[in-house]
Amino acid sequence: MKFRVILPTIVDTFNEEVQVEFAHYVDDATEVQVRHLDYGPASVEGEYDEALCVPNLLEKAIEAQNEGCDGVISLCFADPGVKAAREVVNIPVVGAGESSMLFASMLARSFSVVTVLPNVIPMIENVSKTLGVQSKLASIRYVNIPVLDLVDKEKMKEALFAEMVKALVDDKAHALVLGCTGMTGVASELQDQLREHGYDVPVIDPSFAAATILKGLIAMRVKQSRLTYMAPTEKARTFR
Amino acid sequence: MKFRVILPTIVDTFNEEVQVEFAHYVDDATEVQVRHLDYGPASVEGEYDEALCVPNLLEKAIEAQNEGCDGVISLCFADPGVKAAREVVNIPVVGAGESSMLFASMLARSFSVVTVLPNVIPMIENVSKTLGVQSKLASIRYVNIPVLDLVDKEKMKEALFAEMVKALVDDKAHALVLGCTGMTGVASELQDQLREHGYDVPVIDPSFAAATILKGLIAMRVKQSRLTYMAPTEKARTFR
Amino acid sequence: MKFRVILPTIVDTFNEEVQVEFAHYVDDATEVQVRHLDYGPASVEGEYDEALCVPNLLEKAIEAQNEGCDGVISLCFADPGVKAAREVVNIPVVGAGESSMLFASMLARSFSVVTVLPNVIPMIENVSKTLGVQSKLASIRYVNIPVLDLVDKEKMKEALFAEMVKALVDDKAHALVLGCTGMTGVASELQDQLREHGYDVPVIDPSFAAATILKGLIAMRVKQSRLTYMAPTEKARTFR
Amino acid sequence: MKFRVILPTIVDTFNEEVQVEFAHYVDDATEVQVRHLDYGPASVEGEYDEALCVPNLLEKAIEAQNEGCDGVISLCFADPGVKAAREVVNIPVVGAGESSMLFASMLARSFSVVTVLPNVIPMIENVSKTLGVQSKLASIRYVNIPVLDLVDKEKMKEALFAEMVKALVDDKAHALVLGCTGMTGVASELQDQLREHGYDVPVIDPSFAAATILKGLIAMRVKQSRLTYMAPTEKARTFR
Amino acid sequence: MKFRVILPTIVDTFNEEVQVEFAHYVDDATEVQVRHLDYGPASVEGEYDEALCVPNLLEKAIEAQNEGCDGVISLCFADPGVKAAREVVNIPVVGAGESSMLFASMLARSFSVVTVLPNVIPMIENVSKTLGVQSKLASIRYVNIPVLDLVDKEKMKEALFAEMVKALVDDKAHALVLGCTGMTGVASELQDQLREHGYDVPVIDPSFAAATILKGLIAMRVKQSRLTYMAPTEKARTFR
Amino acid sequence: MKFRVILPTIVDTFNEEVQVEFAHYVDDATEVQVRHLDYGPASVEGEYDEALCVPNLLEKAIEAQNEGCDGVISLCFADPGVKAAREVVNIPVVGAGESSMLFASMLARSFSVVTVLPNVIPMIENVSKTLGVQSKLASIRYVNIPVLDLVDKEKMKEALFAEMVKALVDDKAHALVLGCTGMTGVASELQDQLREHGYDVPVIDPSFAAATILKGLIAMRVKQSRLTYMAPTEKARTFR
Repeated sequence: MKFRVILPTIVDTFNEEVQVEFAHYVDDATEVQVRHLDYGPASVEGEYDEALCVPNLLEKAIEAQNEGCDGVISLCFADPGVKAAREVVNIPVVGAGESSMLFASMLARSFSVVTVLPNVIPMIENVSKTLGVQSKLASIRYVNIPVLDLVDKEKMKEALFAEMVKALVDDKAHALVLGCTGMTGVASELQDQLREHGYDVPVIDPSFAAATILKGLIAMRVKQSRLTYMAPTEKARTFR
Repeated sequence: MKFRVILPTIVDTFNEEVQVEFAHYVDDATEVQVRHLDYGPASVEGEYDEALCVPNLLEKAIEAQNEGCDGVISLCFADPGVKAAREVVNIPVVGAGESSMLFASMLARSFSVVTVLPNVIPMIENVSKTLGVQSKLASIRYVNIPVLDLVDKEKMKEALFAEMVKALVDDKAHALVLGCTGMTGVASELQDQLREHGYDVPVIDPSFAAATILKGLIAMRVKQSRLTYMAPTEKARTFR
Repeated sequence: MKFRVILPTIVDTFNEEVQVEFAHYVDDATEVQVRHLDYGPASVEGEYDEALCVPNLLEKAIEAQNEGCDGVISLCFADPGVKAAREVVNIPVVGAGESSMLFASMLARSFSVVTVLPNVIPMIENVSKTLGVQSKLASIRYVNIPVLDLVDKEKMKEALFAEMVKALVDDKAHALVLGCTGMTGVASELQDQLREHGYDVPVIDPSFAAATILKGLIAMRVKQSRLTYMAPTEKARTFR
Repeated sequence: MKFRVILPTIVDTFNEEVQVEFAHYVDDATEVQVRHLDYGPASVEGEYDEALCVPNLLEKAIEAQNEGCDGVISLCFADPGVKAAREVVNIPVVGAGESSMLFASMLARSFSVVTVLPNVIPMIENVSKTLGVQSKLASIRYVNIPVLDLVDKEKMKEALFAEMVKALVDDKAHALVLGCTGMTGVASELQDQLREHGYDVPVIDPSFAAATILKGLIAMRVKQSRLTYMAPTEKARTFR
Repeated sequence: MKFRVILPTIVDTFNEEVQVEFAHYVDDATEVQVRHLDYGPASVEGEYDEALCVPNLLEKAIEAQNEGCDGVISLCFADPGVKAAREVVNIPVVGAGESSMLFASMLARSFSVVTVLPNVIPMIENVSKTLGVQSKLASIRYVNIPVLDLVDKEKMKEALFAEMVKALVDDKAHALVLGCTGMTGVASELQDQLREHGYDVPVIDPSFAAATILKGLIAMRVKQSRLTYMAPTEKARTFR
Repeated sequence: MKFRVILPTIVDTFNEEVQVEFAHYVDDATEVQVRHLDYGPASVEGEYDEALCVPNLLEKAIEAQNEGCDGVISLCFADPGVKAAREVVNIPVVGAGESSMLFASMLARSFSVVTVLPNVIPMIENVSKTLGVQSKLASIRYVNIPVLDLVDKEKMKEALFAEMVKALVDDKAHALVLGCTGMTGVASELQDQLREHGYDVPVIDPSFAAATILKGLIAMRVKQSRLTYMAPTEKARTFR
């Protein structure tokens, strides 16, 4: 099994970490290939960034299919380009946001997402609405740290922990989702820390969730519905 | 008042008709400027087309603001780029799909949209979900005519009438919305024809609905919320 | 274009102000005629008041149609008599509450209404439910000032501002709606004041919203659906 | 226990039948007093009729309270005046529509209402929405017989049976509600008839449901919430 | 009329109190028979307890039918075994939780449940979802007292009052439901106490609500739908 | 990794097939142990059967934990005992119904379940409601074949295909879910057959879906929330 992880960003800051992390998510028989964009935004923190990253992300998805990949992950919690990519390729395409929300919907009566900035809250809420799980979403909170500053892991974990407790206590969330794929490698640690404070709740890592769902789809030999994601019609399309 | 209508397509097939039609929608004090795209798809008939049209549409929206326009319409029923454009400009941005659905929600207990192809049904449904009126949406039907073939008005009207009757009888719709901005200039005629057949229901023209809402927003001096549509964060962004 | 604004109240306290305000909402080609009731309540602050104002409001609506008006506005945020009036006339009938909620639904992911008294909260909530936008309604707050005391504009504005900030901060509203048509002429000022405090959000004036929607309906030549609002059946009806 | 049944109509066609029927619904210790209106419509078949019947219905409700009644029923499936009456009296007020829908919601995963005319469908749907059980409502069907023609019981039963079978088969309803209080005394017979045809489903009589709920409220010593139905504010109110 | 009240518990702590209380809920013509379980949990405070109590509860329900009872109440707020019992008997089966929520849905725009322990909150929420009234449920609060400790009535009432005020003020509930059938005989007193503090809201006793609904069903001669609750299929079933 | 698959049935008809099938779902490093019940029903085809199977299923779940298993699957589409088992063990517990519905929610705008008998439709619908994905559920259809007769694979496939096409055409489903874990080993074949007929849609096998989700949970080191599924309180519990 071979899958392509597309980071919808022009910086390669996260590539190595993603490569290392994904090795933990899959077994030895699975090859994980990480790609970032040739053009687009340095990170996705709003609708504008999403709009700019999708065209090249779609090219990367088509490339992945052409190069024999079995599936594609759009590695950003806002699921940029997932719907469009599903139209242009015949292999399964998975988003990190929707994958996490599905796990969280199953494990608890309600869940909260803790993300980076307030800018992305409406986008995440809209993902929950088109996915159909909005009634399980207790709240979306944020640590107020831009994506590219998540490299300071200690600061990030501290801020995440504080918001997570508020989500559990004030918003009555019963499960937690890390709302940015840049928040890598801290889910288990935060889960343990919360349990020590009396909150035995699942903390979902969105990259891991996406990897899990994609592996499952490939194994099950199912992909997105072609009634929902029809192939693009034939006609002229030009590029900048 | 001056507003910019952006057709998210590289063809100029509809420009003149749009210019003429919009003259009926506004008063003499309003200047309507129609623009189409420099690069992108020939029409928007799916998520892929939407992804391709948005980057240039956003440039056109910024240009409109720089050139002193008071508001922007994304003239396509799927509302491509509306959310992203609201982040990048300080003038109101309006979509044809959402505008029509709001009128229809008010005028009847339920409404149906009749659009061009099955490809766009999920996109339209998602617009209704993020707008919040999905409980009023009885069905989305289609005439199975691609956008660029809508020039055959007689064929289009015949197909629309047939689907509209099915929406009223089978889907229990009480109002109707033309689900493509290429279906210009036929709403009133279809409304009359339906009334003659015993169905006295409103038929909403999406271009007219968008023009009406935008005029209203400008007059009321309100625009999109900056809490929902925050200005893009500062960072590197590159283009093809 | 000629439209009739019906104030569902027996006092004429607001007539002149309404006349002056509506002149700002329409262009010169539009004649606005303001009428108040011959019998009914002094203001609408509950279901009982609504019940008492509707019979005469319906007579006024029929009168408006007979006198050649192109449309009718029921000028009260609870939309009294709007549904019934739609049955008895063939011209469009519009309510201030529903009109405002539609604009607010489009401009933000969520909105709050700030009204006069707690008495009307359930009525306003019910308007949102039959309109279909209840999922966008973050909260309904009140200034605890009866309609007839709204003449003290400074007191009203101060109270509105305080509740609006609570709506934005505590209830996570992203847009605001003035929840009484007696709160005339202050929306823009409050919008500016909020922006100065860091909240760049739309503040919707319900009278202006209703005028905008009605103008649009008349221009578009559409009205309420006769499948939803069927003409009254023939039979005996007596009056007090 | 003494309760007042108010028929929101100026004709006394149904009074005696209602008196006789209600005797079956209550025990000997309960006195049932039936009243019709002094002015208003001959039947309630739309929003206009509802508007006309409510003012006198409210007077009758206050009268009932003043004369020592323990509770009031608004005997019409559209629940006219129920919300307003709850504001003006301190005794419980119950509607036939809401009472029936509550029983039906409990007894099956979905239910259909079969009413008189298409005119009242939106009103009934709105009752289900403000009550909160709209997700259980499979459909609202009609026999196309005006209220005052329901005296032909055989014709009514035949039409009801036909529509009920369609509700069960086509709309996947699992319980049935008679959607007009003029459809008296036939629920059990129709229930038996359906069972003989293989459909063992409850058929709810709305008058019986309302009587049952009102008896329960009085016995339990609870009534409508004064936070939802606040007492009318003090001010001028005039009458025709 | 004869009905069987089944307490899904192996202790007989509550039997006498239930017997006495139910005598107040019904008239002299109604015989109330109280039964507890032969095997199962000492109280129902979670899904595990529910699973353990249902098999014997079903045997008791069948026994009730065989002994000529007209209906059955599962006397626990989580409604254990209600759905299964509806399959195995032909007499109406009623739960205390669903019965209370129906009354509360009618009497106010929103209601809160105050129950014993946090363990049962998800179960109660699920009852509201399958019943279809979840949109009316403002919150579920708890007094943090196990069922078997409810015998200290003063402590219980004090804790209930405190949580009820929080439900009204913080959660915007307009009606209240006692969320455990062990909270017997205090609803009216709490209702009075709240009114003295300015909150004139209904407080629903779940046992009383269930008795009222069951009496009504029997009188109306309706029971659960056999399309929703089909008779068990023929096949082998073994017991421990 | 070691997981325990519990068939909530006293027959061992399916054990071997399940053992063989699950070998395809997992890798070599995963040991799958299949168990059936000591007492309970021969199959789960209604609420009564569910009630009878859960007590022993819970014992089997505890046994699995005691014997060092990493997770448990309740192998029946109605997810019997899943919620209760989550309370009594500290390892993840997964149901086949919820797992399938999550995958289907992601892959298409709507999905249908095709199950065995009408008896289980309400149970499956309730699973979708407590999971929170009911808005994506287009319909639940059935082949009218009891679980134990599913051994005739050809008859089953033919019936499934017929109902699936109806779900796609009549109910507008865009994805399909096999609604019984006895429908083993036919999902891919049916998916291929549908694609040949022009319907390129995913067909989800519920056993495979459950195995995939459980593997993911164990790998991610997350389990059900202890705020939603609290450990049972200490008290007396007796068994038959």
